[in-house]
Amino acid sequence: MSQIRGRFNKDADKLTEAYTASVQFDKRLYPYDIAGSIVHVRMLAKQGIISEPEAQTIIGGLNSIKEEIEQGKFDFKPELEDIHMNIEASLIEKVGEVGGKLHTARSRNDQIALDMRLFTRDAIAQSIAGIRGLQKSLVDLAEANKDTIIPGYTHLQRAQPVLLAHHLLAYFEMFQRDAGRFGCCYERTDHLPLGSGALAGVTYKIDREFLARELGFDRISQNSLDAVSDRDFVIEYEAAASLCMMHLSRLAEEIILWSSAEFDFIELDDAYATGSSIMPQKKNPDVAELARGKTGRVYGNLMALLTTMKGLPLAYNKDMQEDKEGLFCTVDILLATLEAMAGMMATLRIKADNTAQATKQGYLLATDLADYLVKKGEPFRTAHDIVARIISYAVSQDKTLDMLSLEAYKQFSPRFDEDVYSITVESSLAARDNIGGTAPERVAQALADARKALEESST
Amino acid sequence: MSQIRGRFNKDADKLTEAYTASVQFDKRLYPYDIAGSIVHVRMLAKQGIISEPEAQTIIGGLNSIKEEIEQGKFDFKPELEDIHMNIEASLIEKVGEVGGKLHTARSRNDQIALDMRLFTRDAIAQSIAGIRGLQKSLVDLAEANKDTIIPGYTHLQRAQPVLLAHHLLAYFEMFQRDAGRFGCCYERTDHLPLGSGALAGVTYKIDREFLARELGFDRISQNSLDAVSDRDFVIEYEAAASLCMMHLSRLAEEIILWSSAEFDFIELDDAYATGSSIMPQKKNPDVAELARGKTGRVYGNLMALLTTMKGLPLAYNKDMQEDKEGLFCTVDILLATLEAMAGMMATLRIKADNTAQATKQGYLLATDLADYLVKKGEPFRTAHDIVARIISYAVSQDKTLDMLSLEAYKQFSPRFDEDVYSITVESSLAARDNIGGTAPERVAQALADARKALEESST
Amino acid sequence: MSQIRGRFNKDADKLTEAYTASVQFDKRLYPYDIAGSIVHVRMLAKQGIISEPEAQTIIGGLNSIKEEIEQGKFDFKPELEDIHMNIEASLIEKVGEVGGKLHTARSRNDQIALDMRLFTRDAIAQSIAGIRGLQKSLVDLAEANKDTIIPGYTHLQRAQPVLLAHHLLAYFEMFQRDAGRFGCCYERTDHLPLGSGALAGVTYKIDREFLARELGFDRISQNSLDAVSDRDFVIEYEAAASLCMMHLSRLAEEIILWSSAEFDFIELDDAYATGSSIMPQKKNPDVAELARGKTGRVYGNLMALLTTMKGLPLAYNKDMQEDKEGLFCTVDILLATLEAMAGMMATLRIKADNTAQATKQGYLLATDLADYLVKKGEPFRTAHDIVARIISYAVSQDKTLDMLSLEAYKQFSPRFDEDVYSITVESSLAARDNIGGTAPERVAQALADARKALEESST
Amino acid sequence: MSQIRGRFNKDADKLTEAYTASVQFDKRLYPYDIAGSIVHVRMLAKQGIISEPEAQTIIGGLNSIKEEIEQGKFDFKPELEDIHMNIEASLIEKVGEVGGKLHTARSRNDQIALDMRLFTRDAIAQSIAGIRGLQKSLVDLAEANKDTIIPGYTHLQRAQPVLLAHHLLAYFEMFQRDAGRFGCCYERTDHLPLGSGALAGVTYKIDREFLARELGFDRISQNSLDAVSDRDFVIEYEAAASLCMMHLSRLAEEIILWSSAEFDFIELDDAYATGSSIMPQKKNPDVAELARGKTGRVYGNLMALLTTMKGLPLAYNKDMQEDKEGLFCTVDILLATLEAMAGMMATLRIKADNTAQATKQGYLLATDLADYLVKKGEPFRTAHDIVARIISYAVSQDKTLDMLSLEAYKQFSPRFDEDVYSITVESSLAARDNIGGTAPERVAQALADARKALEESST
Repeated sequence: MSQIRGRFNKDADKLTEAYTASVQFDKRLYPYDIAGSIVHVRMLAKQGIISEPEAQTIIGGLNSIKEEIEQGKFDFKPELEDIHMNIEASLIEKVGEVGGKLHTARSRNDQIALDMRLFTRDAIAQSIAGIRGLQKSLVDLAEANKDTIIPGYTHLQRAQPVLLAHHLLAYFEMFQRDAGRFGCCYERTDHLPLGSGALAGVTYKIDREFLARELGFDRISQNSLDAVSDRDFVIEYEAAASLCMMHLSRLAEEIILWSSAEFDFIELDDAYATGSSIMPQKKNPDVAELARGKTGRVYGNLMALLTTMKGLPLAYNKDMQEDKEGLFCTVDILLATLEAMAGMMATLRIKADNTAQATKQGYLLATDLADYLVKKGEPFRTAHDIVARIISYAVSQDKTLDMLSLEAYKQFSPRFDEDVYSITVESSLAARDNIGGTAPERVAQALADARKALEESST
Repeated sequence: MSQIRGRFNKDADKLTEAYTASVQFDKRLYPYDIAGSIVHVRMLAKQGIISEPEAQTIIGGLNSIKEEIEQGKFDFKPELEDIHMNIEASLIEKVGEVGGKLHTARSRNDQIALDMRLFTRDAIAQSIAGIRGLQKSLVDLAEANKDTIIPGYTHLQRAQPVLLAHHLLAYFEMFQRDAGRFGCCYERTDHLPLGSGALAGVTYKIDREFLARELGFDRISQNSLDAVSDRDFVIEYEAAASLCMMHLSRLAEEIILWSSAEFDFIELDDAYATGSSIMPQKKNPDVAELARGKTGRVYGNLMALLTTMKGLPLAYNKDMQEDKEGLFCTVDILLATLEAMAGMMATLRIKADNTAQATKQGYLLATDLADYLVKKGEPFRTAHDIVARIISYAVSQDKTLDMLSLEAYKQFSPRFDEDVYSITVESSLAARDNIGGTAPERVAQALADARKALEESST
Repeated sequence: MSQIRGRFNKDADKLTEAYTASVQFDKRLYPYDIAGSIVHVRMLAKQGIISEPEAQTIIGGLNSIKEEIEQGKFDFKPELEDIHMNIEASLIEKVGEVGGKLHTARSRNDQIALDMRLFTRDAIAQSIAGIRGLQKSLVDLAEANKDTIIPGYTHLQRAQPVLLAHHLLAYFEMFQRDAGRFGCCYERTDHLPLGSGALAGVTYKIDREFLARELGFDRISQNSLDAVSDRDFVIEYEAAASLCMMHLSRLAEEIILWSSAEFDFIELDDAYATGSSIMPQKKNPDVAELARGKTGRVYGNLMALLTTMKGLPLAYNKDMQEDKEGLFCTVDILLATLEAMAGMMATLRIKADNTAQATKQGYLLATDLADYLVKKGEPFRTAHDIVARIISYAVSQDKTLDMLSLEAYKQFSPRFDEDVYSITVESSLAARDNIGGTAPERVAQALADARKALEESST
Repeated sequence: MSQIRGRFNKDADKLTEAYTASVQFDKRLYPYDIAGSIVHVRMLAKQGIISEPEAQTIIGGLNSIKEEIEQGKFDFKPELEDIHMNIEASLIEKVGEVGGKLHTARSRNDQIALDMRLFTRDAIAQSIAGIRGLQKSLVDLAEANKDTIIPGYTHLQRAQPVLLAHHLLAYFEMFQRDAGRFGCCYERTDHLPLGSGALAGVTYKIDREFLARELGFDRISQNSLDAVSDRDFVIEYEAAASLCMMHLSRLAEEIILWSSAEFDFIELDDAYATGSSIMPQKKNPDVAELARGKTGRVYGNLMALLTTMKGLPLAYNKDMQEDKEGLFCTVDILLATLEAMAGMMATLRIKADNTAQATKQGYLLATDLADYLVKKGEPFRTAHDIVARIISYAVSQDKTLDMLSLEAYKQFSPRFDEDVYSITVESSLAARDNIGGTAPERVAQALADARKALEESST
């Protein structure tokens, strides 16, 4: 590009151009780039660095470029390298040499830092909104099935009965933390870098407070070298997204398990499953599988940028251009996954009979039996051993616990009495009546709290 | 182990034992495990679940176990699997069957979650302290060399002169963000998980507020399934550590560059460099190289745990045992690197003559020259082109800019005048007098602010 | 350390020593280091660089050091930095100044490259042996259950019936590729680096062919700069290990699923499962869970070293010291996991009644029904659609396919006839009689081939 | 899509469609998909599964679809999900119901496995070609500068003089290994999966040998479950590409260093450097920086797919759809980087005066001095210590070694004599006359060998 190659004798050959150009992906930043340029120009005029009419001309040109882009009429040219130079070149073409004043008191280094921060702020806001949508689906599903009991698992072995609502609220908690992390990330993203110049600041009397105010930034970067070489906010977004995808992958795994013939706990709505090209009987949980599979890609993007930034000396290095495609990919995956999973959770059907049946098998009340003995005076560890022997006996007799006679119980410990038969799935749930436990009243309260938190977050 | 294998007919063979045991690394958690157990026992007594004398006996036993461990006299047994069962078995051996009451109203699932949170809280506090130590070294070095000028670089090409102090403060800013991230991580780590039982809560009337208060937790986990299957706080610590190591790797890279014969900007203190087994003349910046190299391992630990947690169904799964070694490795690397880099920065010597000399070559004032023309009315873009041609001419004449005659200047633009010779390294610095710029007064203020921030953080 | 700090005035302080020392982990390389040194010394004598008696003295000293280490009597000192200097210092102490001749014509840079290659060659051989052991377990299990039918799954939905042996042989194939990859890695590991000096070669008339021959290397590195800065073989080992762990994680996932109450396809031997500290009824597939979980750590080690090596200029840089702990960790995990999984597979019990029952439900013969129509002249795509409608009808009637009347079939297509009832699980298996298909004879042949391949590989 | 949703009552809503569709990226596979389909159809006709005229009709339709795609006239529809169904639907539209016979004896599971293997085979071939191109540039550059001497570095400290050609050949070796790895990967990619059906094989009498022969595969997959669930070849490609990018990043790092004002060893051709939007004097090594930066993304893609595949049960799971975008990204980056770096190396200019000058400073002959003493009878370790003291003395006197008097030398050791002055940069090079050393004759031979290897590889 003639503008930035003045010193060179040869044109960059096409190969270098193709290799170094970024406009094919950074054009996505155009609304942020233009918004930033307009505020920059207004500041230049306010400070008397350019005249008010010049500013108006430039702003008019920028607005018409924006319109062209949105109408698909703008011709992005790789030989102009990036979104910034494409817009500037078009501006000069439109409004003449005065367009060359746009880049006064600015470098592409602080300009791209601005664009990326504006984009990431938006991405964070949308990510939190997506999380809220999924949380709402979870709360709705929990409320609609508030009496449903499922086996709680550890090691994928049935462990103790829990309320389905309690299980779903575990995910609510995970997504609360995710929203919190995105909120923290927002704080560190919300810094105005413009005014840092190429690396050392600029030589004009600019007004960074004005820029910050008009662009909605709470804070202003305090060191120009740092401002142009910092991509922490991108990495932090990607780390928060990785954790959120990890949670989504866990939920997805459970949906896949629960959709299997073996578990058969749920039926996915047809709109959230797909068929097979060869096996007509199949109803595949593709949305959940993709959510799980895409987690790998979001992790990969995080690793990619961490690696790219490692060991770079100050300040800007071209390596940093590689921040964009990964971020865009992560944002797109996260938002689409949150939305798809929310829709899937909102429409699936719980097979409560099957889940209830599953809690009846597998000695899920063994812990309650041990606790029964403890409450009668047995130390926990020996109570645990006694119950282990009872289970072993019951397995050998092919009986469930409620089928054992009191005599049988007493052979293991004299502490057993008739009231051992009052240990039921329902009593087991009810007994876990502490903060965070699965007792129905606790869960009802947790549901109400979750609902309230959601309402508050949306105001 | 007899306690937990009651139902099984065979002893686990040695192979399984070696494969599944964690005590060889989780023994490091003993102070947290014992502290948590003591508070748990006190709560059990307070709630009347065990008697006060029983509690005293157990606490006495736990304290003596702690002492044994600290004196290196405790015999950790892999066949007892983990730190929890090692301590419990020793306790029962010491105090008899009453020791079996320790595990009442508790599971290893909420116990290890507690231990990990207590460990991570400490690790965060130490990490922040380590960051403060390094920041102090940076500020000290900046103050001691506050007039030193170095070339600012982009693309590792000399770009514009900056104050060394400004450059060092860029790192100060990075580490400020790191401290902020660790602080955010602390908020999400500081939740009491104890009382969640294996997964569903416990059947005893426990007092989780008491546990939280005594163990210094600000919040209490609100969902038992989540509490035992959540390792977000470990991953979040590892992500924050990865970013911090990334910053350290950048600083390390610069130290390595600056120590080279080619840059020759600094001399490392002998205590922070090492020699060669074959080349006696070498003085290698090993500390910086290792800081840079270890960054990869910290990234790897992050990736490892993200991968391990992906797609795990609720609640606890044995896979999660793999959270520890990576976390310990990351904490050890981060703390040691912060300390070593702080020491290295505190003792290195700046070769200010060399850095100043380097700012004289390479046309670092070209931007100032373009700005000069802009201030005389030239649009920035055309000013940029004019200066590009001047540089090209100067290169061909093998001259620096101050060696060009006014006539020569005027051939490129009539706007040039005598005052073009007032553009100097010093004027260039002074002109960047905006928030975040490298003007000496700005930097002095930033230094004072940094010093103040450090002082406030230590109170 | 005095030997390598000659030029420095200060002792390295303890901090630097602790940070830069590697002996706490590289001591594991002692047998390779000593073996390499002995051959090096023999070569020096053969070439007349040192005398034969000097060589014998040094070799004697080295052998006695080896013995001390193996008897746990050697005092590794961090202040001597690494395994090389620990051994050399001890040697000089033992045999006097002549010990200082050991390092003639050698640098720690080519020495550590040698040690790492010797270690990795062994690790590869052991990894392949571990793979063979697991493959043998798989083949044994397949043969012992060669008539067992299980549902084949896609998307974790039952898809088509397959032989269990066919399923197990899929893993045999994966591990064949793993063995192949380790074999390829061996080829690129099996290069002698010794003789490359610090980076440029050595000034003595050494005999690298002799070194290679005596140390069992097939090839000799051809470029000294590359030889001391190459860690490709470590990364390639870690990549092969990552793929192998990925396969192990898939097998582990299936074991976990099959052990669940919902699938109930297998029972693990008690020796390969563990119990719960709180729930006496649990029998947890810990070995499989750990295999799955440890996969993350092996991936992390790969990522770590790739990151560490990125962007390092030639030749040796201290960053490369970080290659060891990750490699050791990966080797240990891989070997232990292969062995534990082999033992687990060798001892688990298949519940063939349950797996057979599972193939009866879920319309697994739908594809066969479509193929039936195709063979009667229907294009596949329309046949697929017809069968899809039949399944839909059968589901609505709560019937399996064999319960549908011929009239019912004919309502969907006139092509149906009595022979539709000859479609059975057995006919479905038998029909898949092409290379790689699940037809019993094909599988029997594949099993025989696998057995033969194992036998050949062990000779 | 009607074809594969027959059983469902609702249309997939747009959201699911957008989330699950892959045609937007897998359309890139069209030439492989169509080539595979044509051979498949020819086989079906040969085996009498469809008639010859039907085959001709289908093949005609497929060819015309291919043409449409290549002319940009084909309308890819996301509602048809993927490339396979887009082509099939268009085929049926074009040729009628007979088009529905294309998918006989095939599933999308073995079809996509085929497409991916065909694509990867091509990618491997192109990657090797790209490597050869870069190697040729390196050899050309080395030959054109075969007498140029540069400082060899360790720890980025000048260590010993080496020939530039020797340095460049170190990279030649790295890329040789890369080519070897891609070759190994090719072996494991070159397996025909078609004929594996959805997971269990197909019920038709197909001819897989014919398919393999016609599609140029050396081997045929031996297990249908493995064949449809295996993506090892993609991961192995990505691992090989990661290592290759690691090497490229090292070369790039050196180019960036050497282009700096401080090193000033080379001048990049203008076509391979770019300018600054604000600093007209800058000539940035963007190509090298991007090569270094893109390394992170290639690593990320590897990590992504490893993570995605972890823990997936057999056989095909939708998660595996996430293999494509990462692979495409990696292939594109690797090929473009190899080409750009080859061009850059082919056109850069070595500043031999500067590199030669750099070898004169920094005591690069210290090792030779120690070796001098060793050859006079001093044990290496004491010789090393003596030279260390000499260097220390020379530094304090601000002298180079050749400026020291013989008396001065003798004060450190009586073994010194006049011949100490015959130690020069040239003698140092010449002395390293062993396999892999930097002696000019050795390097000349290595260059000739490299040239020959290149020539052989291209035939």
